[in-house]
Amino acid sequence: MVEAMKNYVVGVDIGGQTTKIGIVDRSGAIVAQTVITSKYNADEGEKFMDSVCEAICDLAKGVGFDQIHGVGIGAPNGNYYTGSIAFAPNLPWAKNQSVPLKAYMEDKLGIPVTLTNDANAAAVGEMTYGAARGMKNFIMITLGTGVGSGIIVNGELVYGHDGFAGELGHTIAVRHNGRQCGCGRNGCLEAYASAIGVARTAREWLGSGKYEDSLLSDIEEITSKDVYEAAVKGDKLAIDVFNFTGTLLGRQFADFVAFSAPEAIVVFGGLARAGEFIFKPIKESMEANLLTIWKDKVAVIPSALKESDAAILGASALAW
Amino acid sequence: MVEAMKNYVVGVDIGGQTTKIGIVDRSGAIVAQTVITSKYNADEGEKFMDSVCEAICDLAKGVGFDQIHGVGIGAPNGNYYTGSIAFAPNLPWAKNQSVPLKAYMEDKLGIPVTLTNDANAAAVGEMTYGAARGMKNFIMITLGTGVGSGIIVNGELVYGHDGFAGELGHTIAVRHNGRQCGCGRNGCLEAYASAIGVARTAREWLGSGKYEDSLLSDIEEITSKDVYEAAVKGDKLAIDVFNFTGTLLGRQFADFVAFSAPEAIVVFGGLARAGEFIFKPIKESMEANLLTIWKDKVAVIPSALKESDAAILGASALAW
Repeated sequence: MVEAMKNYVVGVDIGGQTTKIGIVDRSGAIVAQTVITSKYNADEGEKFMDSVCEAICDLAKGVGFDQIHGVGIGAPNGNYYTGSIAFAPNLPWAKNQSVPLKAYMEDKLGIPVTLTNDANAAAVGEMTYGAARGMKNFIMITLGTGVGSGIIVNGELVYGHDGFAGELGHTIAVRHNGRQCGCGRNGCLEAYASAIGVARTAREWLGSGKYEDSLLSDIEEITSKDVYEAAVKGDKLAIDVFNFTGTLLGRQFADFVAFSAPEAIVVFGGLARAGEFIFKPIKESMEANLLTIWKDKVAVIPSALKESDAAILGASALAW
Repeated sequence: MVEAMKNYVVGVDIGGQTTKIGIVDRSGAIVAQTVITSKYNADEGEKFMDSVCEAICDLAKGVGFDQIHGVGIGAPNGNYYTGSIAFAPNLPWAKNQSVPLKAYMEDKLGIPVTLTNDANAAAVGEMTYGAARGMKNFIMITLGTGVGSGIIVNGELVYGHDGFAGELGHTIAVRHNGRQCGCGRNGCLEAYASAIGVARTAREWLGSGKYEDSLLSDIEEITSKDVYEAAVKGDKLAIDVFNFTGTLLGRQFADFVAFSAPEAIVVFGGLARAGEFIFKPIKESMEANLLTIWKDKVAVIPSALKESDAAILGASALAW
């Protein structure tokens, strides 16, 4: 007897503060969703996993648990090969130890569980439901608190030898006198092109005294959102910050193209909402730095997924 | 009726001066080989292809042409998807036009022909017969007249959207005041780490007057081989040149690792023969620049193929 086709998967997006869980049908519609806390102490990894399993079972009642094909999880430092999260700085319960999510949850739920990092999940989501539908070679860049990436080659995620491939936020964007990055090294792309990096650039430049009449000078704790809002109002500092950030991104993108010759680079996350303020300098800088064979051939496009749904959709797509 | 198993393939390595052709058995032994000229004029592409086909037929007589499974060709700018060579600066007959090697030769020979660029062929050769046997994720870097690369992910060559992936020689190694590269841009790895780049560094430094007693100062046309021979004799300039070159390579290698998380980077070509003079600074610089998760985990190793055989073996491995 052939097993009946199951019509739903579960997408789980583990963030530093909250974990979003959704039931997704074959068309990519989220038919039910919930949010639970990710905030558990160092010794409470099992407690967290129990609460995720519980939430999944509750949520699945609507469609029937026997209709659930599997669970896809996107998480910071989630490793596809080991099925574990390890050394995740923003998750106390997975900071100094390896937490075997896949094994534990498969045992508990009795259905397949697939784990990968959040940027990889976003890439699969984009390929399955978003701007990269039909593409077999593209790179997903997530510009959030950090800079993440998921690389698709021949229609498949690049995991590399150890499952950690695609750390493009930690390629070196500024070689000499580069800013210190959270990873301990200097000059990483993430130190400039993350939301934190953009805010940092704005603060540094304000301190230089060159932009005394900037709208941003009145703000105590500048965020990348403040920079965007100031840019919309025509603030010179804010616009210069996006030009600088986009120029660094575009240069790195040209190197990424030399690696995997993608059809497109899809940009996702908070900074992507800055629209042409960031896309224009990215494209100009990438084109100026591309090898001739790729000029005018690689698209740089925003994600087509609603940010609130993207994480769940991306994770769920792993489960098919 | 099942077709009888054929026991041989043909490897063809097209270089700027000569084209090497060999018959290779299943164990990777070259059982017959020949060399013909690559030097044909702009309008003699067909003449060149005819001469390659003729040489293959002659060579195959020893084992019987019906024993030939297929032909693998490695060539500068050879494109796997299109089966053509285009815009190859060192091949007059394929410089300003696209030459459809695959289609023409398949038609003429009646067996499958596979084309790729020379560095990709070297990567497949290394995976099939060399230092990367059993590896599913590695990067091949060829340090010759130029700097080429072949990237293996999940046991397969990365071709990208257009077949041109893996131009790591044209990632940017020196951002500001970088040397002009043959591609027209500035600061490419190839402008420093190719044989030509190494000789250029030596000449530039000699001109600076800082190395007046260098053994190299007596040589009119310095080559990378001269630099190596001087280094063996303890020449300070020559040793400094290798340290500088290796340091640039190691930094780029760290970025490459962040992309595809390879098990190893295999180094092939003339400069690799400089042994520890080049491998020591590469490894030190790569380790100093790697993200923590990869420190001490990525091997940098020399090719295990005899240079004279490697090109034929690499190309032939494509044909299986």
